[in-house]
Parts: sequence; structure tokens; C-alpha cells
Amino acid sequence: MNFGIAYFPSKEIQDAANSYRKRYDPHYALIPPHVTLKSSFTIAEGKLSEVVSELKRIANETKPFPLRITKVSSFEPVTNTIYFKVEPSDEIIELEEKLHSGKFEDTRKHPFVPHVTLAQDLTHVEFTDILGRLNMENHQYEDTVDRFQLLYQLENGQWTVHDTFVFGKE
Amino acid sequence: MNFGIAYFPSKEIQDAANSYRKRYDPHYALIPPHVTLKSSFTIAEGKLSEVVSELKRIANETKPFPLRITKVSSFEPVTNTIYFKVEPSDEIIELEEKLHSGKFEDTRKHPFVPHVTLAQDLTHVEFTDILGRLNMENHQYEDTVDRFQLLYQLENGQWTVHDTFVFGKE
Repeated sequence: MNFGIAYFPSKEIQDAANSYRKRYDPHYALIPPHVTLKSSFTIAEGKLSEVVSELKRIANETKPFPLRITKVSSFEPVTNTIYFKVEPSDEIIELEEKLHSGKFEDTRKHPFVPHVTLAQDLTHVEFTDILGRLNMENHQYEDTVDRFQLLYQLENGQWTVHDTFVFGKE
Repeated sequence: MNFGIAYFPSKEIQDAANSYRKRYDPHYALIPPHVTLKSSFTIAEGKLSEVVSELKRIANETKPFPLRITKVSSFEPVTNTIYFKVEPSDEIIELEEKLHSGKFEDTRKHPFVPHVTLAQDLTHVEFTDILGRLNMENHQYEDTVDRFQLLYQLENGQWTVHDTFVFGKE
């Protein structure tokens, strides 16, 4: 079973993202708008409760921190994914690091670029058009990260939340 | 903001449901397969943390209980929704009751029929065809309910999980 860890930003940010995702992100139906903190990983049979305990421990020692979106960006030329760029604060970098060290294997293939995907798998014309439009709009948002969620993937690719880890709780 | 409370059954059940939902449920992209425990309700400004505390209290005093799906059924002639019928155990009835009494306003418009929707808004031909097909298949599943989730609705209708309440914790 594939698991993933994500943060769902405020409704305002999700609504703004969905207005683009609906048409331009093939993953639209698979998961609400999110910031991936740990991409698809597997948990060995019988080890789920151990992982949950470790995530609880990490959430307990994390304090809520601000999340700022200041602009739209893209992964061009690597991919033509367009996204809300999340400012890489010390707190989010530290959190992502904890989810890839200690008891967690470091399976990262790319440096961590926190973001909310708006569009992907675009034609060149779509890419230029959407990025042009987004750059004329104002996309600045502030939010407070106070939790993350462990999700698992269904056979159709859709993600279901298994558990929610609120910061600073036991 | 609209909130709802749902239980997401085992991956096996969700996968079985999605094989029908993908084609026959217009809500497919809005939420993974689920059992609704409390349908869309609002929470007054500033009252979310109170509701979360109450849901924690209810989860704390609830013990994990079995969930059994024994057959496929439909709401005909009221609607042509087709669903996995969840056996209405004492435990699930009691849980649903708690989510509509005490601090929660009782906004129920129908008796509680626990189910996982497979198809809805069908033409008459689709309805007959799908129900016939499902009735020739074996749809018996067992699962253990050990949590429920509070979700909120985005402007596009999609649901995001706000928090997970695991039974019998702290």
C-alpha cells in the first residue's frame, strides 16, 4: 500500500488552487489541493502503528508555524508543472527533514520545493497561457500549519486520509 | 463553511466501491468512498474548536466495532442511488445518534441507513443494468470501525479532512 504525508492549506488557498486544478491538473479528482511533505512511500506489513507513533512524536514536538505563498512558479524545464510557491521557511524544511530521517528512510529524489500544484501535464500552449494568466493575478496567501495528515492510495490513484497529526498534542 | 462526518472503510471496500463510482457516481471526484455519519452541517464562527472537543469526547468513549457489508441495495423509489448496505449494528446506530444529539442539533431528514454509495443520478437503463450486475457479484465485506473524520467542503464541492478521531484514545 502506498502512503503519503501532506498538509491541506486553508480553504481559501484550496479554492484558489482548485479553480485551476479542475481544468489543468489530471490529479484533480485524486486529492484536494495540498502541500506534499513526503511523497509516496511504503510501510512494511504490520509496521503502520509504529509509523503512526513516530508521526505523533514528530507532531508533538512541532509548533504551529506560518505558511506564506508569495507567487506562482513552475518546474520548467524539468516538468511543466505550475504551482503556488510556498516560502521555504526553516520550520517547513525542518518538518520535511524529520519525515525523511531517523525512522524514515530518505527516499528523496529531488530537493524539497514546498508547493501547491495548480496544473501539470500541459501542452506548451496551455503552459504559456496559464502561467501568463496567473502572473497577472495576485496570489499571495498566509496560513498557519498546525497539522499534517497520513494518507494511503486506493487502486484508482485516489488518496484517503488515514490519520491527522495536530501539532503540540499528545 | 459546510462540515460533514464520515468513516472511510477499508481499502478493499473503497476499491470495490470505486470500480463503480468512477463511472456512475458524479461525486466520485469529490470524496473517496465513505459511510456518512453526519451529513453537511454548519459550525458557527469560532465554534470549531468546541465541536472538535465534543467529537474527541465521543471518540474517546467509543470502542472499535465491526462493520459488515452483506449486500447491494438501492433507495428506489425515493432516489435511484445504489449502495453497499452496511448492517445497522447497535454500535453504528449509537454513534450516529451521538452525532445528532447533545451539543449537536438534530438536523436529520431521513432515518439513518448506513451505506457506501456506488452510483447515483442514473438513467433508468443504467440503474437496472448496474443493479443487475452487482446482484450477480459477491459483495460481502468485513471491516473494523476505529475512527471517524471531520471534513469540510471546498467551493467546488470537494471534501477535505480537517481532523481524525480515533476511538478510545487519551
